[in-house]
This record gives sequence, C-alpha cells and structure tokens, in this order.
Amino acid sequence: MPDKNTIAVLDDGFVRLVDVMGTDSAIVQAARISYGDGTKTPSDDRHLIRYLMRHRHTSPFEQCELKFHIRLPMDVMRQLVRHRTASLNEYSTRYSVAIDSHQKHYPGDWRYQAKSNQQGSDGFVINDNASIALESTKKETQVLSDVSTLYKALLDQGIAREQARSILPLSTYTEIYWKINLHNLFHFLKLRLDSHAQQEIQMYAKAIYHFAKQAFPIATEAFDDYVLHSCTFSKQECNALRELMSIDVTAMGECGGLQGRELNEFKDKLTMIMEGVC
Amino acid sequence: MPDKNTIAVLDDGFVRLVDVMGTDSAIVQAARISYGDGTKTPSDDRHLIRYLMRHRHTSPFEQCELKFHIRLPMDVMRQLVRHRTASLNEYSTRYSVAIDSHQKHYPGDWRYQAKSNQQGSDGFVINDNASIALESTKKETQVLSDVSTLYKALLDQGIAREQARSILPLSTYTEIYWKINLHNLFHFLKLRLDSHAQQEIQMYAKAIYHFAKQAFPIATEAFDDYVLHSCTFSKQECNALRELMSIDVTAMGECGGLQGRELNEFKDKLTMIMEGVC
Amino acid sequence: MPDKNTIAVLDDGFVRLVDVMGTDSAIVQAARISYGDGTKTPSDDRHLIRYLMRHRHTSPFEQCELKFHIRLPMDVMRQLVRHRTASLNEYSTRYSVAIDSHQKHYPGDWRYQAKSNQQGSDGFVINDNASIALESTKKETQVLSDVSTLYKALLDQGIAREQARSILPLSTYTEIYWKINLHNLFHFLKLRLDSHAQQEIQMYAKAIYHFAKQAFPIATEAFDDYVLHSCTFSKQECNALRELMSIDVTAMGECGGLQGRELNEFKDKLTMIMEGVC
Amino acid sequence: MPDKNTIAVLDDGFVRLVDVMGTDSAIVQAARISYGDGTKTPSDDRHLIRYLMRHRHTSPFEQCELKFHIRLPMDVMRQLVRHRTASLNEYSTRYSVAIDSHQKHYPGDWRYQAKSNQQGSDGFVINDNASIALESTKKETQVLSDVSTLYKALLDQGIAREQARSILPLSTYTEIYWKINLHNLFHFLKLRLDSHAQQEIQMYAKAIYHFAKQAFPIATEAFDDYVLHSCTFSKQECNALRELMSIDVTAMGECGGLQGRELNEFKDKLTMIMEGVC
Repeated sequence: MPDKNTIAVLDDGFVRLVDVMGTDSAIVQAARISYGDGTKTPSDDRHLIRYLMRHRHTSPFEQCELKFHIRLPMDVMRQLVRHRTASLNEYSTRYSVAIDSHQKHYPGDWRYQAKSNQQGSDGFVINDNASIALESTKKETQVLSDVSTLYKALLDQGIAREQARSILPLSTYTEIYWKINLHNLFHFLKLRLDSHAQQEIQMYAKAIYHFAKQAFPIATEAFDDYVLHSCTFSKQECNALRELMSIDVTAMGECGGLQGRELNEFKDKLTMIMEGVC
Repeated sequence: MPDKNTIAVLDDGFVRLVDVMGTDSAIVQAARISYGDGTKTPSDDRHLIRYLMRHRHTSPFEQCELKFHIRLPMDVMRQLVRHRTASLNEYSTRYSVAIDSHQKHYPGDWRYQAKSNQQGSDGFVINDNASIALESTKKETQVLSDVSTLYKALLDQGIAREQARSILPLSTYTEIYWKINLHNLFHFLKLRLDSHAQQEIQMYAKAIYHFAKQAFPIATEAFDDYVLHSCTFSKQECNALRELMSIDVTAMGECGGLQGRELNEFKDKLTMIMEGVC
Repeated sequence: MPDKNTIAVLDDGFVRLVDVMGTDSAIVQAARISYGDGTKTPSDDRHLIRYLMRHRHTSPFEQCELKFHIRLPMDVMRQLVRHRTASLNEYSTRYSVAIDSHQKHYPGDWRYQAKSNQQGSDGFVINDNASIALESTKKETQVLSDVSTLYKALLDQGIAREQARSILPLSTYTEIYWKINLHNLFHFLKLRLDSHAQQEIQMYAKAIYHFAKQAFPIATEAFDDYVLHSCTFSKQECNALRELMSIDVTAMGECGGLQGRELNEFKDKLTMIMEGVC
Repeated sequence: MPDKNTIAVLDDGFVRLVDVMGTDSAIVQAARISYGDGTKTPSDDRHLIRYLMRHRHTSPFEQCELKFHIRLPMDVMRQLVRHRTASLNEYSTRYSVAIDSHQKHYPGDWRYQAKSNQQGSDGFVINDNASIALESTKKETQVLSDVSTLYKALLDQGIAREQARSILPLSTYTEIYWKINLHNLFHFLKLRLDSHAQQEIQMYAKAIYHFAKQAFPIATEAFDDYVLHSCTFSKQECNALRELMSIDVTAMGECGGLQGRELNEFKDKLTMIMEGVC
C-alpha cells in the first residue's frame, strides 16, 4: 500500500486518506451564506477563513469532511475512540480472527516513566541501560508469542472468537474507517499533537495533520496560527503580564508584522491587559 | 436556479443538492472492514446494504454525507434545526437585511385545524367556504405588507438590524447550507415524511428524499423497505395478532415473495408471536 | 461494596448506581410544555409517557439522566465506548498502575464459536468436552500470570506505564463513571439486551436495566412494551402477513386486551397491511 | 413566579432553575477515577478542579447537569437552539394557541446599527433622537396589535394553528425546558456572555451564569479565571509580544500573585514566546 495517500506509522500501522468532501472554498461558501458575498477574490477567501478561525466561528469548518483508513494498535484505538464526533467502523474480532500483528517495542523504543509527569514518559532506556532494553524486548517477544499460540489453540478447539480474544494484548493491531468533519478534526489535532499526548497517538495525529494540510491548506494554516501555536493566558497570568510589561498602547506602531484589523485586535487585547479588565 | 440539482418547494423556496460524499459502495466498503471481504459482486453489495439496514447496523451509513442549499420559511427552519446531527450555516439577519420574501398562503392553501389531531390540519377551507379563504389571504397580504414597511422604516432610521428583525413574521424566508450524514438523514426522513409531520416540512423532506435516492439508490431502497414502509407492533399488539392468526410456522412455505434468510427471519418473528415470547 | 445500589457482574465486575436526575414525572413535565397541561392525574401521567414512547416522541426522555460507576473488562469497555452519547471518565493506565485483575474463564464458561452466526457463540464446551474446557482455563491462567509478571517487571525497571500496558490483555478490568440520558440509555439497552449482543455486555446491560426500571418504572415499562418487546415487519413481510391473514378490520372488536386509542392504532396498522399501503 | 430560583429577563421572559445533577464534588469524583485518589481535602478539590479547567480536561465537567425552564422571544430561541448539545422541549404552537405576548421595544430600548461591526448595535436612539424612538415604539405596537388581531381571526375561522402561526413575529414569546451538562454550558456561556453576542441573549446568559455559579461555585470560578477572562494570543501576536517585552525568565521571581505550579506554567509560556517556539 505504498502510495502517496498512505503514511506508515509505528512498526506495522498506517494512515490512508480515503476521501475528502469540500475544499477551502467550501468553508468560504458556507460562511458567505451568513456574511453576504461582497468579497470574492482568492485573497479575500484567505482573509475570510483566517477571520473565521481567529474568532472561533467554527460552523463553516463543519461543512468539510475527511475519511481515513487507519491501522493502529488497540491501545491507540482506545484513545482515538474517545473523540465521539467521528464516525467509525472497526475490524471485528467477533466476526473474524484477529489481525496477527502486534505493536512491538524494539530495544530502542523503551521509554522511562516520567518523574515530573505522572502520565508521561521521559528519555530512552537504551541510552543508559542497554541490557534492560534488550531484555525487555526479548521478554515481550516471548509473551506475545505465547499469547498468539494460545489464541490460535483456543480457536482450533472451536472456542468462540469473542471469548478467545480476551487474552489478546492491547498492542494487537486493528483497522478502522474513520470520518470526521474539519472542525472536529482540528479539535482532535489540538489535543493529540500536544507534547503531553502519548507519543504513539502523536504519530498518528501527525500523519492525519499532513492530509488535512494537503486538502485544506488555507484552513490548516489558520489553525496553525490561531489555535495550534497560540498561547492562552489566564486572568491571573494577564495580571502578571501587566507587571512585566509597560506599554503605551495608543503610541504603538506596527509590531511583529501585524497589520490592519489584526493589529487593532492585538492592541485591544493589550489595552484590556493594561487596564486590568481582561 | 432551474437546474437538475434544484427542486422548487412552496411559493419561493427550494432544495438544491450541493455536494455528496460517497456512494452505495462507500457503505459496503466501511461495513466490509467489520465483516470481512469474502463477498464482492454487485449483487452481494445490494444484499449487504439491505442486511445492514434490516438489522439496524447503522454506522456504515454514517460514512456518507449530503450537503444541501435550502431556502425555507423560518417557521419550517424552526423544525429543521431541531435535528441536531446536521451541520448548518444560516443567512444572518443580524449581518444582512432580511430576505424580502415571505411564505404566502394563497386562497387554496388554507387548511382547517384538525378535529381529531390537536397538532395537525385537515381539509381545505376553500372547498366549503371560499370567502373565508379569500378574505384570509387578503388580510395576510395586508399585514405582511405593513410589517415589511415598518421593517424598512426602522432600518432607514438607523435602528439595528438585530432589533428591527424582531417584528418579522415566521413566514420570512431564510437560506441555509445543511450537511448531514446518510444515517441521520434517514432518521430525519422517517420523521418528516410521516403524514403527521406538518405539510410544509413534508414537502422539503420529499425534495431531500429525491436527492438521497438519486445519490444512494440501493441504500434508499433498503430504507424504504425496512424502515419507511415497515410496521412495528407493540408487545400488546403482538398478543392481538396471535388471536387473529392461526399459523403453523413450521409448515409454512414461501410467502409474500420472501426467500432465503429473509424468509427465515420472518418465520422467526411469527414463531415468537405465536409462542408469546415477543 | 455489597449495597443495594451495586450489582456484581462477571467474576470481578459490577454496576453501581451513583446518581439519578429526574423521575417519571420529569418526563411528563417536559412533555407538558409542548402538549399543554389539561391532563393532570397520575393515571394521565402514565398514559402520556406511554403515548410518547409509542410515537417515538423521544425528547422528553432526554430530560432524565442516570450515572453509573462500572467495573468491566476492557473487552466489554471497547463495546460500551461506542455509545457516543454517554459522558465517561475512565481509570487511566497512563497515570496509575493497571488494575491487577482480569476477567478469567472458568472451565464452565467456555463457549463454542456459533456455526450459524459468524459473530456469536453457541453452547458450552464443558458439556461435551470437559478436558478442552479444563485445559483452556489452565493455559489461560498460565498466560495471564506470565503477562502480569512481565508487566510488573517492566514497571520495576522504570519503563513508562503507557508503554508497559501494551501487553495487558483485553480481559484486564478497568473502571468508569458513565452518565447517559434516559432516551440514549433505552437505545443502548435495545441493542445490548438483544440476544445477538455478546453475552458479557448483555450481563452489564441487564444490571443497568435493573436500575433504569427502579428509577423510572413507568417509562421503562413503556420501553418494554413498545420497543424492547415490539416486532417490526418490513414492507415485504407486511405483504406476506396479508397473504397469511384474512381480517375484516371494520368488523373487528376488542382484541388482545387493546382498548381505546391503542385499539384504533392497531386497526389502522392492519388496514394499511390489508390494503397494501404499508 | 417570583421565587429565588427565577430571574426575570426582558419585558416578559425569565430563567428558572428546575433541577441540578451533581456538585463541585461530582467533578472531583469523576476525575479521581482517572487520576487516583491520593489527594482528598477540600482545598485539594479546588486545586484539582482548577487544574482540570486550566488544562482543558473537560470530561469530568460533563458529569454535571443543569435544567432550566426559560421563557424567551422566538428570536432569542433561534440563537439558543443552535447549541446542539442541549436537550430541549418547547411550547408547541401547532398543538396550542401561541403565547399572547411579544418582546416589545420601549422608546429607551432602540439601538442604532453599529457602524464598525456589521452584526451589532451601538448606542441608544433615544439619546439623540427621541422622536424616532417614540415613533418606532408606536408603530411597532400598532403592527403587533394588527398581527395579533389577524392571528385570532384566522383561528376563529377554524384555520389550522400550524398555518396561522406563520404571521407571528419573531418577538413572540415561547417557553422551553432546557437541560445541558456543565462542560457544554460553559462553552455556551463563553460565546453568549461575549460582548459581541446580541444583547438580548447576553441577558439570558447572565441569568443562566448566576445559577451555574450558585450550583457549582468552584468550577465556575475556574471557568472565570481560565476561560472567560483569559486572553489568547495568536502565533503572530506572540511574535509581537516578544518585540514588546524583554524578560529574563530564569531570573523571574513571583509575579502577579502566581505561585507554585501555575507560576512554572506561566514561565514556560513566556519562555516559549521569548524563544519563538510558540
């Protein structure tokens, strides 16, 4: 399946783009039914999409859909399925014999439990203790092999697939069709591209992001600028910013490349912070 | 806008098909990831789709989408918007001056309040009292004209569109982009093609149904047979059926054109009814 | 945790009712805002709830909520989580060491793969081959023990919980808080009390059903009569029924205990079938 | 209905709290199933809730529900109903005669169309042109009276309520039961308390906010600090901030009252901005 619509992920997984509904223009088309159609050049389209993203006018992004075929370990699937806004169909291990493949950890894959973060990992084992890394892989290989042997033995003796599967490890690969609209996809990406997300689902998110950017380049660029790489300060942090900065907003000129409406919006935010009304 | 993708509805409304994601084959493709891919001929596809519909395996139908551009009175919109599974963008009467068109009732349109059904209509006024029908239209025309005049006067005097609109009647036309997946569309159609639905939304539902049938002929035929034209009997009604029928299911041959698996399913239902275990 | 709000399920699972919003009266209260408040006695309440259920006026049932604390194997969780309308929080095996308990199969538990149904089980192994049943349990016990040993060893060596868990079997117990409104709960119960659902999730569904019936006795009785124990005939099956029955609906008297409005509705259905307009 | 659970809104509307599921503790309870239960004092509860809100761990907030009885003009209803995550039942003008009350604009109510903002209002008419304000109210009163007269005349002549209602203005009052979980309520409040939202729905949002704060004081305070009064800077704005500020984050002490983990998070944000990796 090595085609331009497929990206390999992990040792035996992939993300494949199956179908797309709409283009950046479909977002504009839906928005213009609300906002009127006075502005019509391609450059206006880009401005409109960026305006919608900046002000969280999210409904026009719902008018676009992406459909993927994904092969992933059940452990990652357990995280993916929590995004309830997607439509999905999954390979059934009640109906069919389970896929005979597991996400395996090579010696270089093992990560340490993070000290600072209860739910993360931090640093590779192999870098300071190669024998543990090698031994862990060896033991994992043995246990996965034993489990596979038992699974097949149970099936051979006529035991129901829906029961035999209960011994399968979470690393067992499964496959899904997964369809989601662009607004909900961006929300998914915001959460799963985050550095605190588990590394494995980050890898799937990156492949999915690639296809979103390819199909909706302007909307995805707006998502980058206004959501993914944005920074939110709490009320208390705005107070702290006020202590750190001393700016006369009215005297401010151009700044950071911001112009026109965006420059004004920036000044409005600074004014609110300076006046403590954030 | 008189093209093959547009159907006129009411005096000034329409339903226009904008885009479709998928075909009947996309349903099959999503289902096969669950059910395996042993069966591959077009005739098998039809069987699979009908099996999915019959057994309410609804998720593969979610893999398809239809997008419409609809012009409709706000009164109908108030019913349409209750289907929360659709994505929609609407013409904004905060941003733009309201569309200068209302759903008008011609003398032949007026219906009587139903006697038997608190929330329906029954019979045309013009058939037994033409003068009431004529007079009602005349008065409606006058009031709609007065309202339009006032709306324009308020705007002319600089009053905000978001306030001026509050006098607009529910018959005012609005426009939307409306996107929904095929599973949710069938649910919408089941409710809004029903003879108890208000006649106006039934007319929109019929136009939408036309495009669903055109884009997904096999799935829509299955919806017709297993949902739209099905008949559900309650537990008590099953008891009543048992009193009315005396059938030896085991001795039954072919019946009503049913064959194979569907004949067996029918016999299973009759057996349950005959044995009172429904 | 052996209290009246907890029901044990499987070898180490349970369903515990945590909180309820509303009563049967809350359904009536919400419906009356639509239908007016002319009818007010308790017997009228029951009639109204049954009318709503019979005619699939589902929104008033959304006004009630049930919240559960459930302990279940991850294999069952994979089915439960597909009901996207519930709110849920799950025990995190990124954050905490996995629960050290698995759903085990005792010799009497093993079921044969169904011959007639690709995705089901049929008959107990122990009944005709005790040695296979005993041997399967013995091997499962050994493999589960080996997996637990490896899981602990990986954690002991500092490997991240989010990686070590990938070898855990689907039978590993997890815990959730699970909240769902009554309409969506009935939909869940319709699907998961069905005899074709996997036996394990049927057992959870039965426990959940118990609490629904306790908290909303009238609504749940209506669900029993009009949904759970109803029987739906397709268009083709209605044709077959017409061949099998010869009924003069106009001459029909009381039947199966049906009276009043429900008797009329039953006659309407029979008339449609007899006239082939179903 | 002047009780402590009812707040009057507009000239004839109200928001009434009907029922609540959960307390701040229910959020903690649901979160602890994920995060373990090491921390148990009330002060820890507050910290946990604030942590969840700050890091957008939204699912525990879904475990709480609020149910309201609201009387509002149909024009506001058209905005409220767009929040698809709520459950709602509305007064039916098919079933019952419409409520004989409209949102009226007193002379002091009329606002000018905003010049700078296509979809807003700006300044009161009465302040600089009392005669337009008086005249507008007078004309509105006349038209509303004419419409009411026609509506009643149509009903008197037996015309169906579902048709007669089409002339009713958007200012006609309606009533709903409206239930929503706390996470979705906060999202609603973020959008509808915003100064760009229409003033009328802001007034309803304020009444709803009051009850949310009363029922969930800690969660609502966290929403205030981390969402409602937060300030988000885009990637480009972060670049501009870097030009405006010159901070040695490593040398920074306490600031703006931030302490401990929140101070560290603030420093992390500043570091990202200073290093241009936002």
